[in-house]
Amino acid sequence: MRLQLATWPDIETYLESCDAILVPIGSTEQHGPTGLIGTDAICPERIAAGLAEEGALVAPTISIGMAQHHLGFPGSIALRPSTLMAVVEDVVRSLQATGFRRVMFLNGHGGNIATMQAAFSEIWSRASLEATSSPLSLKLVNWFMLPSVRRLSRELYGDAEGSHATPSEVALTWFAYPDARRDATLNPRLAPDGPIRDAADFRRRFPDGRCGSDPTLATPEHGERFYRAALDDLRTIWTEFRS
Amino acid sequence: MRLQLATWPDIETYLESCDAILVPIGSTEQHGPTGLIGTDAICPERIAAGLAEEGALVAPTISIGMAQHHLGFPGSIALRPSTLMAVVEDVVRSLQATGFRRVMFLNGHGGNIATMQAAFSEIWSRASLEATSSPLSLKLVNWFMLPSVRRLSRELYGDAEGSHATPSEVALTWFAYPDARRDATLNPRLAPDGPIRDAADFRRRFPDGRCGSDPTLATPEHGERFYRAALDDLRTIWTEFRS
Amino acid sequence: MRLQLATWPDIETYLESCDAILVPIGSTEQHGPTGLIGTDAICPERIAAGLAEEGALVAPTISIGMAQHHLGFPGSIALRPSTLMAVVEDVVRSLQATGFRRVMFLNGHGGNIATMQAAFSEIWSRASLEATSSPLSLKLVNWFMLPSVRRLSRELYGDAEGSHATPSEVALTWFAYPDARRDATLNPRLAPDGPIRDAADFRRRFPDGRCGSDPTLATPEHGERFYRAALDDLRTIWTEFRS
Amino acid sequence: MRLQLATWPDIETYLESCDAILVPIGSTEQHGPTGLIGTDAICPERIAAGLAEEGALVAPTISIGMAQHHLGFPGSIALRPSTLMAVVEDVVRSLQATGFRRVMFLNGHGGNIATMQAAFSEIWSRASLEATSSPLSLKLVNWFMLPSVRRLSRELYGDAEGSHATPSEVALTWFAYPDARRDATLNPRLAPDGPIRDAADFRRRFPDGRCGSDPTLATPEHGERFYRAALDDLRTIWTEFRS
Amino acid sequence: MRLQLATWPDIETYLESCDAILVPIGSTEQHGPTGLIGTDAICPERIAAGLAEEGALVAPTISIGMAQHHLGFPGSIALRPSTLMAVVEDVVRSLQATGFRRVMFLNGHGGNIATMQAAFSEIWSRASLEATSSPLSLKLVNWFMLPSVRRLSRELYGDAEGSHATPSEVALTWFAYPDARRDATLNPRLAPDGPIRDAADFRRRFPDGRCGSDPTLATPEHGERFYRAALDDLRTIWTEFRS
Amino acid sequence: MRLQLATWPDIETYLESCDAILVPIGSTEQHGPTGLIGTDAICPERIAAGLAEEGALVAPTISIGMAQHHLGFPGSIALRPSTLMAVVEDVVRSLQATGFRRVMFLNGHGGNIATMQAAFSEIWSRASLEATSSPLSLKLVNWFMLPSVRRLSRELYGDAEGSHATPSEVALTWFAYPDARRDATLNPRLAPDGPIRDAADFRRRFPDGRCGSDPTLATPEHGERFYRAALDDLRTIWTEFRS
Repeated sequence: MRLQLATWPDIETYLESCDAILVPIGSTEQHGPTGLIGTDAICPERIAAGLAEEGALVAPTISIGMAQHHLGFPGSIALRPSTLMAVVEDVVRSLQATGFRRVMFLNGHGGNIATMQAAFSEIWSRASLEATSSPLSLKLVNWFMLPSVRRLSRELYGDAEGSHATPSEVALTWFAYPDARRDATLNPRLAPDGPIRDAADFRRRFPDGRCGSDPTLATPEHGERFYRAALDDLRTIWTEFRS
Repeated sequence: MRLQLATWPDIETYLESCDAILVPIGSTEQHGPTGLIGTDAICPERIAAGLAEEGALVAPTISIGMAQHHLGFPGSIALRPSTLMAVVEDVVRSLQATGFRRVMFLNGHGGNIATMQAAFSEIWSRASLEATSSPLSLKLVNWFMLPSVRRLSRELYGDAEGSHATPSEVALTWFAYPDARRDATLNPRLAPDGPIRDAADFRRRFPDGRCGSDPTLATPEHGERFYRAALDDLRTIWTEFRS
Repeated sequence: MRLQLATWPDIETYLESCDAILVPIGSTEQHGPTGLIGTDAICPERIAAGLAEEGALVAPTISIGMAQHHLGFPGSIALRPSTLMAVVEDVVRSLQATGFRRVMFLNGHGGNIATMQAAFSEIWSRASLEATSSPLSLKLVNWFMLPSVRRLSRELYGDAEGSHATPSEVALTWFAYPDARRDATLNPRLAPDGPIRDAADFRRRFPDGRCGSDPTLATPEHGERFYRAALDDLRTIWTEFRS
Repeated sequence: MRLQLATWPDIETYLESCDAILVPIGSTEQHGPTGLIGTDAICPERIAAGLAEEGALVAPTISIGMAQHHLGFPGSIALRPSTLMAVVEDVVRSLQATGFRRVMFLNGHGGNIATMQAAFSEIWSRASLEATSSPLSLKLVNWFMLPSVRRLSRELYGDAEGSHATPSEVALTWFAYPDARRDATLNPRLAPDGPIRDAADFRRRFPDGRCGSDPTLATPEHGERFYRAALDDLRTIWTEFRS
Repeated sequence: MRLQLATWPDIETYLESCDAILVPIGSTEQHGPTGLIGTDAICPERIAAGLAEEGALVAPTISIGMAQHHLGFPGSIALRPSTLMAVVEDVVRSLQATGFRRVMFLNGHGGNIATMQAAFSEIWSRASLEATSSPLSLKLVNWFMLPSVRRLSRELYGDAEGSHATPSEVALTWFAYPDARRDATLNPRLAPDGPIRDAADFRRRFPDGRCGSDPTLATPEHGERFYRAALDDLRTIWTEFRS
Repeated sequence: MRLQLATWPDIETYLESCDAILVPIGSTEQHGPTGLIGTDAICPERIAAGLAEEGALVAPTISIGMAQHHLGFPGSIALRPSTLMAVVEDVVRSLQATGFRRVMFLNGHGGNIATMQAAFSEIWSRASLEATSSPLSLKLVNWFMLPSVRRLSRELYGDAEGSHATPSEVALTWFAYPDARRDATLNPRLAPDGPIRDAADFRRRFPDGRCGSDPTLATPEHGERFYRAALDDLRTIWTEFRS
């Protein structure tokens, strides 16, 4: 069940048997010359939609994340870590106020991880500093780190997976939006790697926006395999989490 | 052109001839017994998609807004005004950092208006307090206040339009998602009206979540008419804004 | 009763029969070549003083508001929206902590409206996100939008009322401070109109600080009529609000 | 010259020969059974008005201050220190943006001192952390600590001056508002003294709101003498500060 | 007992008979050509260590303080006042959450005083604005203002004590770290004095970093005398505070 | 060279040949029945002191970290993530303002990692959102994750290392403070493991404060070996970082 297509009586009924919800979160940022700017939101949204068809309650995707280092490329939009923390805090507190006790985020962007974890700690600090007890379970699942996904990526791409604008995520977006496929010759095939700092430094180090990856290896068929692999792992995690 | 389905070179090219972007913004909140929780995001997203097909650049929808008063009903999610202001500020500053000069928000939620205007002022305060000059044009367009939309609503529903869970927005969501149509007998037909305060007070005053409206008057056909009316007005505003 | 001229036992007694208070709020900002910098504070302060004489409890005027767009003209002072929100929140929470349940702001500055409404929502968010119920009633009354005031303004000035440094507010300041009257020839008689952005843009669009108005039409006699009209409407609103 | 009764061209002219301004700041808080709630704002406002008559530019009084410890008594209004710091920062930055370089605050409330000094440091931190140089001079003058005022207080009241709801400030409010005089028998004559913590603790320690003072010694004639003493000292400080 | 060398069961036992803790706080900032950058942290840390040996519970030293005005000299590190307030608030709330009721700060830096007091008020505002009662006792003790210390400083140095990089604090650091002694000829012997503003202004006024002091008068033997004097006074204050 | 025992001219000289600094950061939190509350600060401080003896510039240790989950045990002190981010931001900006360009944090607490990374991104966001370029290099090194340390831990303890109150960190504190050694029988030998949430939940899951570890395996001799292993790795990283 997708939250935005439900009514409040639907959710009231749902809460009678389950107090868990899945929130996809991504980013709107450059993904190299051929990757979609929405890649990091599209991937968790597509996987979560699969789980929603099986009955899980899925919230609207938070499409903007912590992407300051991509601001050297047009089309990128970033929340400061402090802003993203406030967003996550308000989302979780809203869900708690209306009866949810378990909130699982399905994340599509590596740059969100640290900030999301800091946000969870900020939320728990409220209870801890008041010496009260919080009823909340919070969990962050990164689809690109799911075991089946990692296995498939190693099998298909080996080191060419890289860390940004990877063939696995590009493949998944093409499965989700077949018309979005772009073919291009990338030079060098394998993008450089290095540390991540501010946006100007990032563009100097990674001139076309990719980090260590060769997304030309992606195909829509790979994308479907990534989707199925991720959904299988996610289903298991969700089933355990919701009970 | 939808930003999430574009690449950064696409946007670099777009910026050579236009520095304007349209950002849909809504809310995730109860809309009465039959209205979709995603109504306020779905409506501007659907209208903006129409303009994107005509060439306008449209960002991903900001789906969560200032909806604290709806937190008495499950499924509602709210950002505090201060959080939403930070989000809007970061989105606008990101776009400015990457070359945009004109940002137009297409809004689907009355509760966002004051906070959005405060956010614009907060952004401009940065320049004003530094005694520098900002190159930004910011504009807030509320689709439900567009003249053609108001005219059509008055014609179709008169006073039964009300102010929340209105037949016009319900109709538009049914046009966007025909399967989402829900028919139900609402009692009373016309919901009560009154001031808006905190969530507990809201649920006392508006027991089924509607304010002053009779959404049973909505039809998908009306929805398409609202879509066309809104798109016509928006096209005119956009054309003037982008140049 | 004016709060600053009362003692705490006076207020303790007052609270036994009434838990409402009126807080004038304005701005300190340029009002064109002839308008007083204090116009937006003087007007609600003067009207509220009238109601105080009839027994209403009136707090000290908050004289500084959201006026970033006027910072291109010397003498203007502005709070960022986020700062004004914190001020309103602390004032309201202080009053609540000491026994008040109804707080009505009498506002003299259009630029404050959105931020004040966002502040109210921020206050209510505290209760809504905690799933508790707030006992507060908050109300914003803009004196220049009161029906009797609008009627009188239309009658006396028509379109020459404009939107900043208006003849109605100038007239009211001259009624309050007869010595402050300034006569001058303004060129053009009717100031230009347009959107409001940052301070530098504002000064470019509105070279002498007025927006769409011709304040040379004002007289102290008009000022007294505006005072009486506003006080009549305010009395009705207050009487209903306090009970 | 009082800022609120001036126009922006007046201030533009003033700035040609002087870039200094005086800002009265006080508090709205209980002052014992007979002291006015507005005492801390009325005193600096009255003294500053004297200097304004001699040509100094005086801003509107900031009437609400850091008074959390008085919130056990109705009629008290408090800003959190963080809020007051934001207010002071915005006021100073506004004045700097419009051409001022010297800002002197005339303070009437001991509870404001630490927060005001912290606010000054916050303002200067902006320049220091950017390794730039600030052109600002900021000064805090507490009228009740001026040498002539201290001398007169010791002469008239000795130890009965105390530290809150003091006879000197009560006297000055009676000079400013002769009708506000209240006579009452206070029991004990001399209020207790002790540390200041939260509001509940304060009301327990200081049951009628006074700290160590006997305000029954005050007379309006004393008030005029305090006014003249303070004005003499202030004039000297201002003359040196503005040049 | 030093907190960092204890275990949690040690503290659980300690709390059975005492709910007070001593927190040294200082700064990391230039102290003239011969003074240690850690002077303001070393002094309270050394004195507190003496009290810890006598059984008082002493927390780790907060080594960074409000030192924005020293940022013109390399080696200085500063927290903004707002940041230091958040640190103090979190430290106090943590201690309160785990059973402490009395928190005494032993401060080594004049620049911290106002911000610390504002932080205490911010903490108490939480209770006061909620109309609840706080069980906390908070106290700020500045070692350099202790009566025995002031007496000894006057006796040894008279006016050459000055206000920054003073011989008394330099002497105490040499007692704590005998190898850190530095002898140098300072020119002028007595440093200039003046107001404190931003870092650039500070370096202009105080070219070698000292304010009004002649630290060449310091000796390690003086340092031991200051240590004993401070410890004697502190013991008395602590004994009264903890009970 | 330790910053707190240096003078500003020392640092001015140092900056002529090197613009890098090492900042130890830890936490003050329970470490089980036998581990020191200061463990996470003592470990990086001790290792950094080794590097300081070899010429590296080492700042004072930031002794308080993100430890909200330990607040169920007395003696723990925690900064909220947002507060720790402000501290890191101010420290880095201070160092940048005074000439440093490379800041390396040596961290002793796993709970700090996410927040530190978020803080770095917040710092870089300033440059990225302004479309300017930051000259800063920031690096986070966790001593307990250094390859030689991990190797030694696996060799000595295998799975009994666990994740909190580990034998490796306990051993290192006993090397640093031989008198602090505590022997005790722990029951169970191997502590339980599980997710980390708020403080009340943590104490329920981990009744004596340890997570998955058996610190009774620690010896001071192990501690010295960990010290040497960590110092070797750190030296290599530092040498590369500073040039």
